[in-house]
Amino acid sequence: MRNRSAAPIHTIEALQGDERRQELPSRKRPSRRSRYNHVFAIHSQARASCLSSQDAKETPSFVGFRNLMVLMLVVSNLRLMIENFRKYGVLICISCHDYRRQDVVLGSILYLSIPCHLFVAYIIELVAAQQAKGAVARIKRAETKADATGETDRKNFHYAWYLIAFAHGINATMNLVITSTMVYYFINHPGIGTLCELHAIIVWLKTCSYALTNRDLRHALVYPRADEEVPELYKSCPYPQNITLNNLCYFWWAPTLVYQPVYPRTSHIRWVFVGKRLAEAAGLGIVIWIASAQYAVPLLNNSMDHIAALDLVSIAERIMKLSTISLFCWLAGFFAFFQSWLNALAEVMRFADREFYSDWWNVWSIRTYWTSWNKPVYHFMKRHVYSPLVGRGVPPSIAQILVFIFSGVLHELLVGVPTHNLIWVAFAGMMGQIPLIALTDIIGRGKSYMAKVVGNLIFWISFCLVGQPLAALLYFFAWQAKYGSGSKQFSARSR
Amino acid sequence: MRNRSAAPIHTIEALQGDERRQELPSRKRPSRRSRYNHVFAIHSQARASCLSSQDAKETPSFVGFRNLMVLMLVVSNLRLMIENFRKYGVLICISCHDYRRQDVVLGSILYLSIPCHLFVAYIIELVAAQQAKGAVARIKRAETKADATGETDRKNFHYAWYLIAFAHGINATMNLVITSTMVYYFINHPGIGTLCELHAIIVWLKTCSYALTNRDLRHALVYPRADEEVPELYKSCPYPQNITLNNLCYFWWAPTLVYQPVYPRTSHIRWVFVGKRLAEAAGLGIVIWIASAQYAVPLLNNSMDHIAALDLVSIAERIMKLSTISLFCWLAGFFAFFQSWLNALAEVMRFADREFYSDWWNVWSIRTYWTSWNKPVYHFMKRHVYSPLVGRGVPPSIAQILVFIFSGVLHELLVGVPTHNLIWVAFAGMMGQIPLIALTDIIGRGKSYMAKVVGNLIFWISFCLVGQPLAALLYFFAWQAKYGSGSKQFSARSR
Repeated sequence: MRNRSAAPIHTIEALQGDERRQELPSRKRPSRRSRYNHVFAIHSQARASCLSSQDAKETPSFVGFRNLMVLMLVVSNLRLMIENFRKYGVLICISCHDYRRQDVVLGSILYLSIPCHLFVAYIIELVAAQQAKGAVARIKRAETKADATGETDRKNFHYAWYLIAFAHGINATMNLVITSTMVYYFINHPGIGTLCELHAIIVWLKTCSYALTNRDLRHALVYPRADEEVPELYKSCPYPQNITLNNLCYFWWAPTLVYQPVYPRTSHIRWVFVGKRLAEAAGLGIVIWIASAQYAVPLLNNSMDHIAALDLVSIAERIMKLSTISLFCWLAGFFAFFQSWLNALAEVMRFADREFYSDWWNVWSIRTYWTSWNKPVYHFMKRHVYSPLVGRGVPPSIAQILVFIFSGVLHELLVGVPTHNLIWVAFAGMMGQIPLIALTDIIGRGKSYMAKVVGNLIFWISFCLVGQPLAALLYFFAWQAKYGSGSKQFSARSR
Repeated sequence: MRNRSAAPIHTIEALQGDERRQELPSRKRPSRRSRYNHVFAIHSQARASCLSSQDAKETPSFVGFRNLMVLMLVVSNLRLMIENFRKYGVLICISCHDYRRQDVVLGSILYLSIPCHLFVAYIIELVAAQQAKGAVARIKRAETKADATGETDRKNFHYAWYLIAFAHGINATMNLVITSTMVYYFINHPGIGTLCELHAIIVWLKTCSYALTNRDLRHALVYPRADEEVPELYKSCPYPQNITLNNLCYFWWAPTLVYQPVYPRTSHIRWVFVGKRLAEAAGLGIVIWIASAQYAVPLLNNSMDHIAALDLVSIAERIMKLSTISLFCWLAGFFAFFQSWLNALAEVMRFADREFYSDWWNVWSIRTYWTSWNKPVYHFMKRHVYSPLVGRGVPPSIAQILVFIFSGVLHELLVGVPTHNLIWVAFAGMMGQIPLIALTDIIGRGKSYMAKVVGNLIFWISFCLVGQPLAALLYFFAWQAKYGSGSKQFSARSR
């Protein structure tokens, strides 16, 4: 014991942290024994618990809980995957897919015939351009002669304008009508049907944009005004030089729904970039297919009895379970289409404006969501529906509602026609956006961080948690009600 | 058509954003019709997709996905709650709890008798203080007389020291031995057993700290040295003035395991604070009870067959499912005990050092976790085990391993004794921390943000995702194997 007293009392301070201790070579220690006593004051000052918001000087970081959340999401879904596997085994099966021969043949014919409407629109525009050139020449001659024939020519041009509009209207409408009718009545497989219908709607929008834009370019040619300038960008290809097959084919394949005679272009194609994007799209496509076959289909099948019995708690439980997988498919599908596929296409087309979406996942207003998740459609709606309506004196709020009605009809066509059930749920979903926009607009006025989080949560809940799984469930139920579970596409593989 | 030409082409720029538009009173608009055409260049410049890391100028914020994660966690667990309810109904039942009369009587006697050992330690210290005071007086007298009796007195004091150490050793050991024996052999209910065992370990640690600290204070009194100062804080109550019943009772109830004659104190008790903390603790206690009765117990019961059959995939699935509920109970229990209960106790005791934990949830090193999640035990280990060992020349790494062995034995006592199965899983879990510390130390050297995230994930996975649920499962399995599912505490209520 006597040796102990040789050591200073506060040695514990020298012992904090192993590293410092280990740096001291042991031979330098004054004595190997009894350097320590148990008196040191651990509780030497007043300190607060870091979670006592009242007392603690600063809130601690909670970044560890973010990591934990990611981990729990991964683990809980991994667990559900194991559970699913133990219950159903492997449901993925390529040879089990059953396509009717008629579906494949009809679908292919439809798919290939749809772009023809774009070429019909080109021929109409070719005629219109000829007529416009003639009109311009005659008007010029009339103006130099200063006689009255100019006015007659303008009238003729006006009549021709109606004729051209009528021709375009017939052509574009035929596209939608023929495709929808064929898909609804003759193509049973909803996948093939959706592909055809989606293609038809895209081409229809492109045709409309092509016709409307060229109409106004033609008008600007016939009635040139100093204050009415055609955009600087188009100067390199003024009307009617843009009415060529080349120009149309570029628009046909360009990743946009809005026609411009000239687009911003990149200098060259980065083929490595194209390869990476295509690999992403293909990989995600396979993942989505596996996810829906293995997880979504059995879930949808299991939900049928609950829906038929209107068992609301069970339906809620099924929707919640479905929401994870539908959200996953949605995010993967979004990335595959808007990031991977459209970027690959844009790169090949040397199309420089790649803003196909902006950061919609952060939106705190449903309004912003609809202007940012799908820019090609948003641009079309803004340029060819909303702005013309407002320009003609329609109040902006009414114009907005009209845009959502138009968009709702297109959504219903896209979902209801291939599933052979026009139950107008997709349309109702689009209509539901209007009160949601009003709600998040009111919340967004708060401008606080919390208001934004609440707005963002309303977006996620309404869209990915309720909207999509509920719609999927209802269309699936309508399908099963119409065709029974004997239908080969969905049910036979699971249960 | 003629009217249209009156409008400038670029009016769409004036239409962007409704707010701006709505500010314009309609009568100011030059013409209500035909102000718009479809020519405006939407694609006017090269732009990148914000997710193309190669091209985009800056990475977009992903804060929306954080919100989505929280939402998905809430929803997926809500769904599991519905599923659980539909499968088992309500399992929570107060009157169903079955305590054997013997358990309650024996448990109460044990619980009340445990603190007696602290008072025995006090009596030992009282005797020791008397002896030390006598020794100091005699040494002083001898020094003034300058004769040789001082040396004899020192020797006598030294013998007394061994006697006192022996008495403390017997007293403290009896506490642990009596409690553990009684709990292991005579208290069947694991809840009552755990309470008694936990109380015994806490009092045992307090007794050890009381004896060791007073020994060194006494030594400092008998052999005073200029370079060996007792901490400034203790000056207000120098040895042996601290050996009073009051001082001991304060230590008995103070939220610390480390004895100090004097602690930092607050000026007054905020009773509203105490009330809030107690309400939190009570609320969380009820929540934990519901969570374990309704969710953990059926899960544990369902896992028994899989463990018996050593079906590893099923065991993994069960552990994953169990991890959510055990993590929830762990976090709620941590908050209830370390934040709510210890803060309430500290407030009542006017104990000012409230640092019962620091932000362990952010740790990227397992080493830091063990120094921050349970500060009272960490302080005890550092002051009375680790530092004395290192002070006596034991290499720090060996001292650390010894601390973990000591802690492992205490953990095994705490879990194994009340469940009547010393299967040494808790001990093995503590031993497993040593390689994990080495691993996270190596990863932590990276010092990058990613290295810290990986370290944090290793912590969460090892501790909350594998360690705890696996240990719970094994002790539950051992319990069931020993007592069969006929045991009333766990199984009868579920299935």
